[in-house]
Amino acid sequence: MRRGRDFGGELHEGRHFLAIRIYYEDTDFSGVVYHASYLRFLERGRTEFLRALGLGQRLLLAREGADAVGFVVRRMTIDFFKPARMDEIITVETRPHEIGGASIELAQRVLRGDDVLVDAEVRVAAVANGRPRRLPTEVRQILRHSTSPVNRQVADR
Amino acid sequence: MRRGRDFGGELHEGRHFLAIRIYYEDTDFSGVVYHASYLRFLERGRTEFLRALGLGQRLLLAREGADAVGFVVRRMTIDFFKPARMDEIITVETRPHEIGGASIELAQRVLRGDDVLVDAEVRVAAVANGRPRRLPTEVRQILRHSTSPVNRQVADR
Amino acid sequence: MRRGRDFGGELHEGRHFLAIRIYYEDTDFSGVVYHASYLRFLERGRTEFLRALGLGQRLLLAREGADAVGFVVRRMTIDFFKPARMDEIITVETRPHEIGGASIELAQRVLRGDDVLVDAEVRVAAVANGRPRRLPTEVRQILRHSTSPVNRQVADR
Amino acid sequence: MRRGRDFGGELHEGRHFLAIRIYYEDTDFSGVVYHASYLRFLERGRTEFLRALGLGQRLLLAREGADAVGFVVRRMTIDFFKPARMDEIITVETRPHEIGGASIELAQRVLRGDDVLVDAEVRVAAVANGRPRRLPTEVRQILRHSTSPVNRQVADR
Repeated sequence: MRRGRDFGGELHEGRHFLAIRIYYEDTDFSGVVYHASYLRFLERGRTEFLRALGLGQRLLLAREGADAVGFVVRRMTIDFFKPARMDEIITVETRPHEIGGASIELAQRVLRGDDVLVDAEVRVAAVANGRPRRLPTEVRQILRHSTSPVNRQVADR
Repeated sequence: MRRGRDFGGELHEGRHFLAIRIYYEDTDFSGVVYHASYLRFLERGRTEFLRALGLGQRLLLAREGADAVGFVVRRMTIDFFKPARMDEIITVETRPHEIGGASIELAQRVLRGDDVLVDAEVRVAAVANGRPRRLPTEVRQILRHSTSPVNRQVADR
Repeated sequence: MRRGRDFGGELHEGRHFLAIRIYYEDTDFSGVVYHASYLRFLERGRTEFLRALGLGQRLLLAREGADAVGFVVRRMTIDFFKPARMDEIITVETRPHEIGGASIELAQRVLRGDDVLVDAEVRVAAVANGRPRRLPTEVRQILRHSTSPVNRQVADR
Repeated sequence: MRRGRDFGGELHEGRHFLAIRIYYEDTDFSGVVYHASYLRFLERGRTEFLRALGLGQRLLLAREGADAVGFVVRRMTIDFFKPARMDEIITVETRPHEIGGASIELAQRVLRGDDVLVDAEVRVAAVANGRPRRLPTEVRQILRHSTSPVNRQVADR
């Protein structure tokens, strides 16, 4: 499976796939990937997922006044099943599975081929100037559309 | 509260406290600490907690054959309540609350004064040569002793 | 210029180009990329340059006995001209310009379009078991060939 | 030598010493400290050096209008002599040796006991809103005073 190796990854059936190469910086002296590095990979996956939907984060943050919106991680449950190693290519899969008024729940996985290395449930909240705020309507619509059955069927063809 | 500012932190009533300064490297362009940096802080807390009990990780890993033991994070549930900022001093609190045959459950918090910034539940498993193994008996005893009521009373004085 | 956006980058006229996206993890609270992050980018560039020549680092390190070889950075002179920002795509250019008996001098740059953001001169030495060693003959030949005028002409077509 | 183990390190004879513990996050799969981690250590040393002189960076950046000042690294020459390892305590030594109108040259070293692991020459420039600016007069005076022979004698006692 070479899914997600395009620069920025790819959307497929309502899921986003981003391939990532493991470098020295990601590993630790135990010989495998340092556990906190997976959070960096997951964040890259979320950023590219949003970008693929037209929601670049620097632009969202730079919007005027009440329209400015940033995303912060509020909660994460993460299982580490198997380690990745130097030089390997892993894939981050990102799928929103609940779009609330002020937060998004995402299911994310780190895969190596068919092996699930890491499984994560991530709640991301919208903030403006450091305070919680509602998701802008068009952001919510774009996210909901990205996960609708229709969209998945279209993507499927 | 200046708890934990000794080099390596301090044990107090069965809990370990480690003070940490926030530097440039820990922050991101949103202006506050990058969410994955807290995992690095929590790992420092666990490492110093184990060291305070006489369980240095490089030594444990270097032991002969069946005695070699490393720790890996298997599962983490983490809530991010409030952000830390550049130049602040935060404290990592570490407390084991379940010592199993092959894994340890730790409750950890990141505090700024009395504010709880981050709350984490962490399961750490013992491994040798990348495979699960039982915790060596004396490691288990040391960990259990660290959390016993007697020990807490003694530490209390 | 979209050079280097293939997964693993590309060799062109004796130079290697690797495109890299800037993520949250790379920035700091000053709003731009943290200065040490550029060293991570440069290391990715060197790793992909070696891989493009068939010199994967995990394989080199895993070779038997006297053939094992790792690379360590011995010296670096680095100029930081302009900062990169969140969401931008930068390119790491890597070019060996001196292949010695036990070390390699590389000229590296971080570019954003035609802008030179960072310029670095890097000396990398060969080691085995933590001790200096000579570059294996075939590694030296591959590196020298990669920078020869003939090779550059061929690459040029 | 236990120099610099106070929280924030210590000034001694015009030099600043900061002790740092090596954690998992600082190492890579080669078994020793990742080369870019030393830049993080050097930055911590500079930050604590400035703080010891009363020049906290978040405060400097938050000053009003023309008084706001940030520091950015412009140039670094760095020699990596020997590696540090997990669990070790190293010391970052920081000494300004040229205070210019808009930049500072610092000599920094990473020490393990008497061993010099890393030697660095760092040029740091003053900026405001991303543009070069002159060092505020009182900042320049404080830095110059910190390195004057008189101050070194006083510190010597």
